[in-house]
Amino acid sequence: MLNVISSETLLSHTQNFSCIGHEDLPLNQCTNRILAKDIVATENIPTFKRSTMDGYAVQAVSTYGASESNPALLFIKETIDMGTPPRLPVEIQEASKIATGGMLPDGSDSVVMIEYTDPVDPQTIEVYKSVAPLQNVIDVGEDISIDSIQRKKGDVLRPQDLGAAAALGIQKLCVYEKPIVGIISTGDEIVPISQAPDIGQIRDINQYSLSSQIIQNGGCPVFIDNVPDDFDALFAACKKGIQSCHMLLISGGSSVGMRDYTIDVIQKLEGAEIIAHGVSIQPGKPTILARLNNIPVWGLPGHVASAMIVFHVLVRPFVRHLSGELSPPFYSNQTVSARLIRNVSSGQGREEYVRVRLEQSEGTINAIPIQGKSGLIRTMVQADGLLTIPENSEGLEQGVLVDVILL
Amino acid sequence: MLNVISSETLLSHTQNFSCIGHEDLPLNQCTNRILAKDIVATENIPTFKRSTMDGYAVQAVSTYGASESNPALLFIKETIDMGTPPRLPVEIQEASKIATGGMLPDGSDSVVMIEYTDPVDPQTIEVYKSVAPLQNVIDVGEDISIDSIQRKKGDVLRPQDLGAAAALGIQKLCVYEKPIVGIISTGDEIVPISQAPDIGQIRDINQYSLSSQIIQNGGCPVFIDNVPDDFDALFAACKKGIQSCHMLLISGGSSVGMRDYTIDVIQKLEGAEIIAHGVSIQPGKPTILARLNNIPVWGLPGHVASAMIVFHVLVRPFVRHLSGELSPPFYSNQTVSARLIRNVSSGQGREEYVRVRLEQSEGTINAIPIQGKSGLIRTMVQADGLLTIPENSEGLEQGVLVDVILL
Repeated sequence: MLNVISSETLLSHTQNFSCIGHEDLPLNQCTNRILAKDIVATENIPTFKRSTMDGYAVQAVSTYGASESNPALLFIKETIDMGTPPRLPVEIQEASKIATGGMLPDGSDSVVMIEYTDPVDPQTIEVYKSVAPLQNVIDVGEDISIDSIQRKKGDVLRPQDLGAAAALGIQKLCVYEKPIVGIISTGDEIVPISQAPDIGQIRDINQYSLSSQIIQNGGCPVFIDNVPDDFDALFAACKKGIQSCHMLLISGGSSVGMRDYTIDVIQKLEGAEIIAHGVSIQPGKPTILARLNNIPVWGLPGHVASAMIVFHVLVRPFVRHLSGELSPPFYSNQTVSARLIRNVSSGQGREEYVRVRLEQSEGTINAIPIQGKSGLIRTMVQADGLLTIPENSEGLEQGVLVDVILL
Repeated sequence: MLNVISSETLLSHTQNFSCIGHEDLPLNQCTNRILAKDIVATENIPTFKRSTMDGYAVQAVSTYGASESNPALLFIKETIDMGTPPRLPVEIQEASKIATGGMLPDGSDSVVMIEYTDPVDPQTIEVYKSVAPLQNVIDVGEDISIDSIQRKKGDVLRPQDLGAAAALGIQKLCVYEKPIVGIISTGDEIVPISQAPDIGQIRDINQYSLSSQIIQNGGCPVFIDNVPDDFDALFAACKKGIQSCHMLLISGGSSVGMRDYTIDVIQKLEGAEIIAHGVSIQPGKPTILARLNNIPVWGLPGHVASAMIVFHVLVRPFVRHLSGELSPPFYSNQTVSARLIRNVSSGQGREEYVRVRLEQSEGTINAIPIQGKSGLIRTMVQADGLLTIPENSEGLEQGVLVDVILL
């Protein structure tokens, strides 16, 4: 018999595993990777006052009161070359020509846009509008101030984070390694997709759908083997898997049926501790989680839709945890609110995941439950998402708004 | 002067570009890639009736009326081996032992779960519960029926789609190539991040933030060159870029200022047709889009936040279009509904993108506008998303619900 625990209890065990190693990667390989060390600013950005406009660097006081009818007359000191420091300071009633991105000369504190000036002669301009100190200027440290923490350990790296690292001259970031997740497909009737199945045989689907789920969640899938329903063969594949992987998924044979060897094999692996054999979710009840040192070893149902749903609901948070993600941002649930188009009943005492298709109709999004057994890949291909019926509920009524987890 | 068009008009030009080539890739490299040919089922899946339970294959009629008090007595014909066809047919009042995934023998139409049977002697079982035809069975073609279209050209490949391909024995899928997007960074004051900037110089940020945005959207970034504000240098870099890329981004120099050569250079490229010089969005007004054969050539603002926002709003749809994506699913907008915590004003006649931080407070999500110039990368690092103020609006009032585009 299964010894069933709730999904919540199972998920609390993520905390008993520690994240794996880290590596230093060049910025152009860091997109979507997870930071293993804070990004701390070692300097001010910019290191000098920069102009944000084409115009003239001035002391703001030189422009006070300037208007169309009463322009300020300023003496042109120099034209500032880009990328080099200005040669001359700007005193009162002086101006130096500057382009966007240029460095302000000593004495100046603001930039008058070129649109508000007119040349009088080669040495003189008229200014028609006053500026305030720091107007049209990025001040020293205004973008990034020295010692500030830009991003924290555990954050997923976005384009702008890599931009901030580049601004600081950081060429490599320390990110967590991708967890290597081994997959073993079990079943006497399962053949590799490269082989034509005989009558009574079917192709190995789970290897491909699980690999792709692993990739989408930042892991690195490795296929270990296709094994028949045989204790010794599965034991050998598991030994191989735990030597090279940070996590192991065994698809098929996780229940207590005639050909289910997964639990026996895991129990024989030295140091393995069974955390769950049975989780109160539907589909996916016959799921096994064991811990072998820091390796989560999973027995997943062989039914293709069940295996995918168990991955999404239970395995995924472990992959993310091993990858070093602390917790995803609260707004990134990837759920969509939709109206349920018919009643869905559910057995009490188990959390139920219903595959749904989403459809847009007159400004609302409808969630349409998909019929079909959990052994059908079609039900997942047709599904846009999953809705959850909680453990203590008997079902959901037509018309209610539900949060659909996008697949 | 700029010749400004709306973002809507600019985006309508995606249709004038055609998507690029395609390639056949093994399934394990297809996650998130875009299909270039429909996946059509060339066979029924399964090809035989499969059991979804451990139990006995029977003719349903043999069990009609069976109950705890009045069990049906069935003769055991054989035990079906997994992965091989059954040897013997099942007649009325007969049963063959079968495991989950096993092939039903001729004559049988359903499976009685083992839990509802008891052995009487080695040749006989009692059945305590009746089954209906096809109960606990996946019928021929019930998962995938021959000639059905599983996924269509233009669909983004998900784990379940790869599962369906595997079920059908498809080892490679025809997907669109990733568009190669060249980046040229311009500016006399810009130095590569590997170089210590002198006074007045700053590091090249845009190369890294834009590359990462390209990666996130399925493109393949290639850095062409850092060039000074010089017509000939930029012209040479563009010539190089258009020879090897499907799209070209020139960051900096897109306006009409003292050092802005991008428009002149693009006009000199043989066959280039200017689609826009100026788009009525803020930030990002001085944006250039030109078409050179099938290559979109962009002049992006140099200010880091502007360049990223222009990428997100305008360039991104072109990258996705060249990648072959027809249109993203209606539910995948990646927006979050949030409450604006203060008034935001906007100039009429331009679409405004406001960077916002999201914060959870008492069950609601608040959108907090971020202050700061568009030249500051910090404003993007702090931002979780963007909110849009439409062209004909003077702003948004505190307390309204806004859709925040996640960054």
